[in-house]
Amino acid sequence: MEQKWSQLWLAYEKKTEQGNEVFFRKVAVEGFSAAERVVKSALKELETGARGMFGLKPDVLKDVTDAGLILRKVQENGRISEEGYSVKEENGQIVCEAVDAKGLLYGVFHILRLASMGKSLAGTDICCNPDNPLRMYNHWDNMDGSIERGYSGNSFFFAKDDVLTDERVRDYARLVSSVGINGVVINNVNVKQAATYLITDRFFDKVARMAEIFADYGIKFFLSLNYAATMELGGLPGADPLDADVIAWWKEKMKECFAKIPNLGGFLVKADSEGCPGPFTYGRTQADGANMLADAVKPYGGIIIWRCFVYNCTQDWRDRRTDRARAGYDSFIGMDGDYRDNVILQIKNGPMDFQIREPVSPLLGGLQKTNQMLEVQIAQEYTGHQIDVCYLIPMFKEILDFHTYCKEGADTVADVISGRTMGNQNAGIAAVINTGNDANWTGNDLAAANLYGFGRLAYQTSLTAEEILDEWIPMQISSDKEVMETLREILLSSRETYEKYTSPLGIGWMVTPNTHYGCSVDGYEYSRWGTYHRADHLGIGVDRSDKGTGYAQQYHEPNASMYNSMESCPEELLLFFHHVPYTYRLKTGKTLIQHIYDSHFEGYDEAEAFAKAWDRLEGKIRPETFRTVKERFGRQLVNAAEWRDQVNSYFYRKSGIADEKGRKIY
Amino acid sequence: MEQKWSQLWLAYEKKTEQGNEVFFRKVAVEGFSAAERVVKSALKELETGARGMFGLKPDVLKDVTDAGLILRKVQENGRISEEGYSVKEENGQIVCEAVDAKGLLYGVFHILRLASMGKSLAGTDICCNPDNPLRMYNHWDNMDGSIERGYSGNSFFFAKDDVLTDERVRDYARLVSSVGINGVVINNVNVKQAATYLITDRFFDKVARMAEIFADYGIKFFLSLNYAATMELGGLPGADPLDADVIAWWKEKMKECFAKIPNLGGFLVKADSEGCPGPFTYGRTQADGANMLADAVKPYGGIIIWRCFVYNCTQDWRDRRTDRARAGYDSFIGMDGDYRDNVILQIKNGPMDFQIREPVSPLLGGLQKTNQMLEVQIAQEYTGHQIDVCYLIPMFKEILDFHTYCKEGADTVADVISGRTMGNQNAGIAAVINTGNDANWTGNDLAAANLYGFGRLAYQTSLTAEEILDEWIPMQISSDKEVMETLREILLSSRETYEKYTSPLGIGWMVTPNTHYGCSVDGYEYSRWGTYHRADHLGIGVDRSDKGTGYAQQYHEPNASMYNSMESCPEELLLFFHHVPYTYRLKTGKTLIQHIYDSHFEGYDEAEAFAKAWDRLEGKIRPETFRTVKERFGRQLVNAAEWRDQVNSYFYRKSGIADEKGRKIY
Repeated sequence: MEQKWSQLWLAYEKKTEQGNEVFFRKVAVEGFSAAERVVKSALKELETGARGMFGLKPDVLKDVTDAGLILRKVQENGRISEEGYSVKEENGQIVCEAVDAKGLLYGVFHILRLASMGKSLAGTDICCNPDNPLRMYNHWDNMDGSIERGYSGNSFFFAKDDVLTDERVRDYARLVSSVGINGVVINNVNVKQAATYLITDRFFDKVARMAEIFADYGIKFFLSLNYAATMELGGLPGADPLDADVIAWWKEKMKECFAKIPNLGGFLVKADSEGCPGPFTYGRTQADGANMLADAVKPYGGIIIWRCFVYNCTQDWRDRRTDRARAGYDSFIGMDGDYRDNVILQIKNGPMDFQIREPVSPLLGGLQKTNQMLEVQIAQEYTGHQIDVCYLIPMFKEILDFHTYCKEGADTVADVISGRTMGNQNAGIAAVINTGNDANWTGNDLAAANLYGFGRLAYQTSLTAEEILDEWIPMQISSDKEVMETLREILLSSRETYEKYTSPLGIGWMVTPNTHYGCSVDGYEYSRWGTYHRADHLGIGVDRSDKGTGYAQQYHEPNASMYNSMESCPEELLLFFHHVPYTYRLKTGKTLIQHIYDSHFEGYDEAEAFAKAWDRLEGKIRPETFRTVKERFGRQLVNAAEWRDQVNSYFYRKSGIADEKGRKIY
Repeated sequence: MEQKWSQLWLAYEKKTEQGNEVFFRKVAVEGFSAAERVVKSALKELETGARGMFGLKPDVLKDVTDAGLILRKVQENGRISEEGYSVKEENGQIVCEAVDAKGLLYGVFHILRLASMGKSLAGTDICCNPDNPLRMYNHWDNMDGSIERGYSGNSFFFAKDDVLTDERVRDYARLVSSVGINGVVINNVNVKQAATYLITDRFFDKVARMAEIFADYGIKFFLSLNYAATMELGGLPGADPLDADVIAWWKEKMKECFAKIPNLGGFLVKADSEGCPGPFTYGRTQADGANMLADAVKPYGGIIIWRCFVYNCTQDWRDRRTDRARAGYDSFIGMDGDYRDNVILQIKNGPMDFQIREPVSPLLGGLQKTNQMLEVQIAQEYTGHQIDVCYLIPMFKEILDFHTYCKEGADTVADVISGRTMGNQNAGIAAVINTGNDANWTGNDLAAANLYGFGRLAYQTSLTAEEILDEWIPMQISSDKEVMETLREILLSSRETYEKYTSPLGIGWMVTPNTHYGCSVDGYEYSRWGTYHRADHLGIGVDRSDKGTGYAQQYHEPNASMYNSMESCPEELLLFFHHVPYTYRLKTGKTLIQHIYDSHFEGYDEAEAFAKAWDRLEGKIRPETFRTVKERFGRQLVNAAEWRDQVNSYFYRKSGIADEKGRKIY
């Protein structure tokens, strides 16, 4: 029977060339119970891998002597920590050690990965421990089956206001655990209609069944909560977090949830944001709301992940003092340290909303006594809808490497969210995911590089964007040298290419309202969303210096001063922080307007080069993948041409300054 | 029991002051059969009016001697023609004469109107004959109950894919026949899904029932057709109008339709337009398509009304040669004279799409051997969504009075569509209607002036916009002097006010895409719709002269030359025909840019004055009407401020030219 969906990087195609077969014939488990669910999954996956790659079924032995592969439980020893593992070849045996079953599972996936990449396992000697305690995917799946900002079909968790628990959920769990994901939020943060009832008898049975599937793969199960559930489910008149009835209702509800749903990790909450209810309604703080829920889940070891995406979404475009970029920091910084230990604030990487280029949110490291998680988005909402290719790992690396200057020696975003800065355990990283029920999961096959890469990076932050591709390309696409080189080149430059043909130098937006695909330079300019470029006939950009909205001052020094001045501000963020004349000379010697023209022509040309490079790979790639990606490149070119021509025409018509090179502008 | 919907101008409130009561006590019918359905309706309406205004029930006598009101059938006599009537007071008796029952019904409505307006019937002596043979309302109602471009609730003809035939349909028929409408198309020109089945057994019974209601009021019943019905219903492989199977299918289908649906007048067809199928698909002409259907309905006296809204809706904004304005003329002029006698081409008033200001379509009077109907829109798609007040009769008067120079002495649009130019009978005028199932029918109570006014104007083109208001205001709102004066002033200037704060000098568009309410200056600028303003830092407008797209040359002389030159082009259409520098001096001495600023400030100020004037009427108007109209004026002001500020800011930012008066621009 043909599979209805692909296995992505777990396809386990025939691999004979490296002599790895020998290690998979006999497996011994030592110290672990082979009956433990996660160990069982590890063994099952080994079996699947061995069948696919070598056409054999491993024998599982009690005795290690004859084993090619030994799965061994060890005590924590300073070398391997929780969810970590080592893999070492010793005298013709591969030994995988871990202190817990999750670590073992990750170790097994590592072994399978090496084999699948076509590497020889002989001589392997590695030890890996996770950098981030929590490594999560957030689904924005609605119970009607739609996915908010989904670009690859409908939900595989929900349909027609019901919960699905078919084999696809298991394959999903395998895929994400294989890259180290240990937590999943299955439903949209905008919790409406049926989704409010996920924490009731109406759905408990099916939700529990799904949570069990995740438990098999060491993945904690989370739900998004409707903050107003006390009213919608509880029949209470309000949701004031200090109200005794509200508190009592949630205590009872959480007792029920943790009793009915096994493997429940806690809840994600979007409150007081874009129409979602929250504590502000009752004159309470965000901390009041988060802590009330945290107290209710505390007895069960649960956590509350509280999103910081709070801003005024009914702003007046005429008002130049209110600055949406400031809102997250202004709303949350005052309560630093006021949160319970089992609350984590989940902070989007930038102060706006997942644009192709934003500064790092000043809340990250700005908060110094509060658990923090970084939220990024691999659903390509503003980065090409999985039509345009956009490998996001380089962007995530930049964010993680950013020095916040919050604490000497441990001040990068990576430090803050890993717990290294503050020594906390409730910390980590989450991505809004890019999956749906398309056969290839991610719409564009190449978008799976983000699905794969985010997990790998979350587990091991030191991996480079290149290293991640060197794993993913051979596993999912092909290990052919030309394919590897071509795809590496396309993917590694794809983010900059996308940036070049879309909005310039950190200004963001300029997208079609609502859908967020395609160009509309003024689409968000006269709107209520706080998203303005302020272009006039002389220049463009938002003054966020101390002479403007003062946003730059939300950073620790020396970042504050760096952003504050037009000269020291990194040029890729120039228009985010400053209103700049078109005639301003960039460090390249180009004027701003000429930079806009040049980068837009370049961006299109690069996209065209991608498409041509892909065409040259025909015959070296599975026909279905070749064809569908080719079709997407075709659409990307149309999009890139629209962006190029609309942006260039817009600024030419506005500035009256001609392109120095005399190219076609309309 | 309280009515669920209002009776608009047929409310028949108590009227005692004029001594009209005496005429209504006894009514005699002479020459007409009181059993004839339309005569019955006339008598019933007289009864309703007499009960409401005078609290009495008229006796219907055989003998005229004692009657206060005589309804008399006369032979055509050169004075009264078909559907015409005279009303004369003679020796204390009101005599209403007509040659047919429809004329009698209109005469009765005229009598009731005078009484309802509070005029004395004594001394009346009028004779009215309709100017246009066909006077139609087109509904864009869908069978799911939604209304395309509807701003006053859902359909009262359809719900949940079914046909409604309740009392509201009867009241609707009364209302529109009272202003002389003699044809109604009940379903959207975009015929999809269930609506395709209106011409099948699935709906014949209910459709027939509805058609009977209209028959009672002398209104011919029409349906919009799906041109591809041969495929969707007939199972044929295509819809080629020259294909024998297609022809045969339609002949059979029309035989069935006219047998099953009484009072059927014919069909309206939107073909080859915005995704609708049509003869172009088969390499045939519009005439081929229309004639094929016309032949099929001919045996039953049916007519085919064929819309001329054909243009390329997937244009490239970069392409400055293709001009949507040209499309209607270019598509239809070549086949002038090729249509059957029972085909009428229905032509939108302007070449674009119901903008607040457009030139008259050059097809009107351009076609010289083809039946023509004018199509206007009282659904306020581009004119304020029945939130903003916009009395459209002055615009329609301008259109009707426009000299096309097609034939000496009979060259106005009014001449062409009345049949005076060519001596044809299949001619007339249609409006896309503004009704829905809101209690007040039209969303904004003031929008009923358009519903009323269109019918009156269609019947009697010589009526002025003021005269129509002098009828409507006292009947529907109040005959209080201050109310009359205030509303007259508001309504008569409302179209110019709306124009002032929206897009300038005939350029059109600049609306929010899709919804068409609210400002988005560039919303349609980089789109596929052929709707561009071409603004740059120096000027704005589309060159449609002989040096541009050549559109101006589609007119007869001297119009072609008038539009062709910037100097002679009427300034309200300047930007429609020419690309004009911001510094160009208008005849007022103002620069173009200053005109833009001034008109936008003025437009808002006028809207504000409307709102204030309305407020002063509190207590003189029914509270519900006062309150809801006040609420709409509030929304109009928000809209007007957005338009003013966005348009002014856009052009200031683009041109860099400051407002001479130093007002606030953002």
